[in-house]
Amino acid sequence: MPIHAGMVVYKNRNEHKPHIEKVRTIEQGSNESRLCIYSHTGTHVDAPYHILEEGYKLDQIPLYKLYGKCKVFNLVDIKDRIGIEDIKRCPIEKGDTVFLKTRNSYEENFNYNFIYLSPEAAQYLVDQGAEVVGIDALSIERNSPEHETHRILLRNDIMIVEGLRLKDVEEGEYTSIIAPLPIVGGDGSPARVLLIKKSLYI
Amino acid sequence: MPIHAGMVVYKNRNEHKPHIEKVRTIEQGSNESRLCIYSHTGTHVDAPYHILEEGYKLDQIPLYKLYGKCKVFNLVDIKDRIGIEDIKRCPIEKGDTVFLKTRNSYEENFNYNFIYLSPEAAQYLVDQGAEVVGIDALSIERNSPEHETHRILLRNDIMIVEGLRLKDVEEGEYTSIIAPLPIVGGDGSPARVLLIKKSLYI
Repeated sequence: MPIHAGMVVYKNRNEHKPHIEKVRTIEQGSNESRLCIYSHTGTHVDAPYHILEEGYKLDQIPLYKLYGKCKVFNLVDIKDRIGIEDIKRCPIEKGDTVFLKTRNSYEENFNYNFIYLSPEAAQYLVDQGAEVVGIDALSIERNSPEHETHRILLRNDIMIVEGLRLKDVEEGEYTSIIAPLPIVGGDGSPARVLLIKKSLYI
Repeated sequence: MPIHAGMVVYKNRNEHKPHIEKVRTIEQGSNESRLCIYSHTGTHVDAPYHILEEGYKLDQIPLYKLYGKCKVFNLVDIKDRIGIEDIKRCPIEKGDTVFLKTRNSYEENFNYNFIYLSPEAAQYLVDQGAEVVGIDALSIERNSPEHETHRILLRNDIMIVEGLRLKDVEEGEYTSIIAPLPIVGGDGSPARVLLIKKSLYI
């Protein structure tokens, strides 16, 4: 998600909105600025520490989580939540990074009824050995005060990526790069996420 | 560079230091935080707009600049600046991402006499067709009010990466991933930078 003051944020909360302030201009020598941003704004990564006090933090994410074989699944027909039957149709192998493309990718505003991942489907992803799970919602679950989906994934060492934009991405296999900032002790971070087609390998 | 309040910043300037504030805790449901960071703190990318008013901005950087064939050159014996004779010893080909490893990578504090890239060497990189130039200093030049090295590179469409940490990286060829945040209209951004050995290709 491009980062700007008017971007869509979770539940339209003010504290999630980024502030970008120009600090110097070309007339003073160079354009320079300051960015203030919430740890869960835009396309971002959740470190286990986001939900689990004993979970590892952003700067402790193993590098192999950031670069991997990624499968993008087209689930745009789902109208409420990704259930166990939906996820069972996705051929997932041990070590996969799994990106879930839903109708969320076509929303321009925050939709309180966003598509999310059910705890049962999360457990299935754990059982299949997924390494990373990404979704095109600003949270991977909704109306879940106990964060059950988050807990199932994070306590099983599955990294979560939220706020993906997959409208222009076709279902298929890619190499994914997930690049959060290495904030020491961080619970989450905006991240640049890139998908590379095999034909672009160097 | 790991991001934390006490990290090394350019000329030890206060406004370059990041501020990380905890906003919510597990007791309130989840750990969440806010990061305020300068556009040129830590490992970061300079968009042409940093120095050139008409230059393109951070969110306009072509994706092919972010993923490329990278050559890391060992220049740790240089004591002042990377001159034309130094850079001529580096076999650079059209399209290369060039990372310059100097003694800066071994510094733990800000050294006002950091190693930098001379304008003549920058022009040589332009002539050889480099696509991206990275250095392990927080600025690619010093004591240069006209930003000559920056200008030569940026007006020739070479992206600059500063604040690399290359102590543990051997000279050689890699695939590089340079992942700044896509800040709309931005002049620069902290970036996660990854080097991949060929043996790790998927």
